[in-house]
Amino acid sequence: MSKQISDVASYMTALGGEARQASRVLASATTAQKNRALEAIADELGVSRERLMAENSKDLEAGAEKGLDAALLDRLELTPGRIDSMIEGLRQIAALSDPIGEIFDMKYLPSGIQVGRMRVPLGVVGIIYESRPNVTADAAALCMKSGNAAVLRGGSEAYYSNQAIAASIHSGLRKAGLPQEAVQVVATTDRSAVGQMITMPESIDVIIPRGGKGLIERISQEARVPVIKHLDGICHVYIDDQADLDKAFAVAMNAKTQRYGTCNTMETLLVADGVAEQTLSKIGGALIDKGVELRGCERTREIVADCQPATEADWDTEYLAPILSIKVVAGLEQAIAHINRHSSQHTDAIVTENYTRARRFLTEVDSSSVMVNASTRFADGFEYGLGAEIGISTDKFHARGPVGLEGLTSVKFIVLGDGHIRS
Amino acid sequence: MSKQISDVASYMTALGGEARQASRVLASATTAQKNRALEAIADELGVSRERLMAENSKDLEAGAEKGLDAALLDRLELTPGRIDSMIEGLRQIAALSDPIGEIFDMKYLPSGIQVGRMRVPLGVVGIIYESRPNVTADAAALCMKSGNAAVLRGGSEAYYSNQAIAASIHSGLRKAGLPQEAVQVVATTDRSAVGQMITMPESIDVIIPRGGKGLIERISQEARVPVIKHLDGICHVYIDDQADLDKAFAVAMNAKTQRYGTCNTMETLLVADGVAEQTLSKIGGALIDKGVELRGCERTREIVADCQPATEADWDTEYLAPILSIKVVAGLEQAIAHINRHSSQHTDAIVTENYTRARRFLTEVDSSSVMVNASTRFADGFEYGLGAEIGISTDKFHARGPVGLEGLTSVKFIVLGDGHIRS
Repeated sequence: MSKQISDVASYMTALGGEARQASRVLASATTAQKNRALEAIADELGVSRERLMAENSKDLEAGAEKGLDAALLDRLELTPGRIDSMIEGLRQIAALSDPIGEIFDMKYLPSGIQVGRMRVPLGVVGIIYESRPNVTADAAALCMKSGNAAVLRGGSEAYYSNQAIAASIHSGLRKAGLPQEAVQVVATTDRSAVGQMITMPESIDVIIPRGGKGLIERISQEARVPVIKHLDGICHVYIDDQADLDKAFAVAMNAKTQRYGTCNTMETLLVADGVAEQTLSKIGGALIDKGVELRGCERTREIVADCQPATEADWDTEYLAPILSIKVVAGLEQAIAHINRHSSQHTDAIVTENYTRARRFLTEVDSSSVMVNASTRFADGFEYGLGAEIGISTDKFHARGPVGLEGLTSVKFIVLGDGHIRS
Repeated sequence: MSKQISDVASYMTALGGEARQASRVLASATTAQKNRALEAIADELGVSRERLMAENSKDLEAGAEKGLDAALLDRLELTPGRIDSMIEGLRQIAALSDPIGEIFDMKYLPSGIQVGRMRVPLGVVGIIYESRPNVTADAAALCMKSGNAAVLRGGSEAYYSNQAIAASIHSGLRKAGLPQEAVQVVATTDRSAVGQMITMPESIDVIIPRGGKGLIERISQEARVPVIKHLDGICHVYIDDQADLDKAFAVAMNAKTQRYGTCNTMETLLVADGVAEQTLSKIGGALIDKGVELRGCERTREIVADCQPATEADWDTEYLAPILSIKVVAGLEQAIAHINRHSSQHTDAIVTENYTRARRFLTEVDSSSVMVNASTRFADGFEYGLGAEIGISTDKFHARGPVGLEGLTSVKFIVLGDGHIRS
């Protein structure tokens, strides 16, 4: 293995072919075998702490030399605590129930045949990600548990860390009697490897990019295989005039301030005119106390003194920062219209005690997560009980919202007969 | 409306935009409203028989002038019987249960929130099809029932027939108080309209091509939106040496001879060596009596005298004709290996009385339909109880196998709380 590979195209083709072959073994591996491999990888990472940190320090040094900023270097670092989390993550995935082989919806049809579905792996999953090296273990584990082979392409700044983790993964796979080719960690920093990876439908069935919007847009544009993609999170909370205002306060504060940089953070607050004065004077003040910059419509600014005017662009902006846009609306109708126009269809919530309005909001808001009286911050695979999350899809096709193991599977029809023929 | 449109790009953009807007209305239309529209369209078609046949005769005349062959002209013709079937099809789709709004998997999570899923439309479905004009009504109905707007592009040879059906659809939609823009039947025969249609992700969410392999491959290559595609049907029946030979005979004969030109017709018969002599002498003779040309491996040719030698290419050929390739294999292992190598992953069946082998076949054969003791000819949306079928997907992503209303939907997460916030 080497960072520089002379013929990237042949290298990627060979690696993809190996993954495809290994995927057939993974697809029919038993639950016990897959779990044994995950546990073995966890053990391997445990005994390799020294090696992992030594390899990681090569990346950190190279990063510092290249002038990476402090935040990026921090994300790149494999601390003992992060190695522990990575190991713990693998054991958690081992403990999840195996989605593969699940049979459901078996029904007898008038012809006498019995028809249902069986959950099966997609095949080979390609994941393209940026600096955090723990994604290598996490993504490999999710693919393995769902019976898929994986082709992983991490950021070039984490090259040595990723290769060190790959060595532990391969060793764990071998110990469980599974082919180490089932997890391919691309061993070149050559950028053309990504272009190759997203145009090999014969070897890779789906691409999941995890990273900034630029990366995801470029990959979606150029891919010749399906992409499970996650673009913006412009999330809304609408406080109805029949809201319980204590709940409204709690939900709005949590949705904005529990963490600022996540995709499920509220970026726009909508408030019904009837409760605007009462609500905004309290929430506005509390947000400003927390250091959040407010940008509001005219009506908002009449209520909250320390509020900048919002421009049209604000309604379409994912701040990922302590900034919030606020708009007073006439009521439910206007709130839904605003959301369906400006939301990125990620996560939107209503706060109301009114049954009919809650029901309408759930039905009419076309976002991957729609909530009543709950903080948008809950939009997350772990919080939803998926057990793990490989990403959040803002698409409608195949997978939508937080994607767990099930998003990495397909289903086939199974038909049971007793010599049945079609007449 | 006219066949020649000077600026196809602007025309398609406008039409797509209208469909997108109408899709929002369709998405929240009630079941009653959608059914009312379907019934109204059925009524409209019923009172428009004369007009439909008059418009259809323009297509038939133009087709005859252009020298279309008899089979194509036959497919193009709208006979009174075919109009009846079209009307009956609409009423059947009205009678199906509405998939939209279905809520399932609601569970309480440790945080106290209740999380589940709600089925929602995809948005706008684009369908590109060839000569049969009845597809216009059928596809429009399936899209409407699943809450989607539709953009339909039929074959240019059916232009007048499709526009006549479109007029009935629009009139029915208006009578039910739904926007007629919800079903767009492209009113130009300009070929560039297809190129436009498959590259408008802002207006069309998924493309379903229904037609020959050439059309589907071209569309898959050039589309910038997801495609639900159906390529070959190279289907296998494997007769195990623990098969009930009466069932084996019935299934094999039905799978090959019930219809020759369908995608779920058997193209290759695999027989375990232990029962090859007994099985093939009987089935071989019966197939030859039916006029089926046999192409076999050496062992097959020792048993069946009137059998041509099969070449390697035969194992990868979809004949869609009274031709069958036959191979004798050692047993289950070799049968599965042959299928996973040569099958087009459409439909494959085993005939066996052995429980363990049936279970292995179901698990290890990676096809969209896998069957035990049943004819491959059952692989069909109606036979599977889907109520209708917009196509059969040979992909694994989003939809696999026969695609009914559910394949035209997505799901969103819904979260119910009581002022819950994330800690």
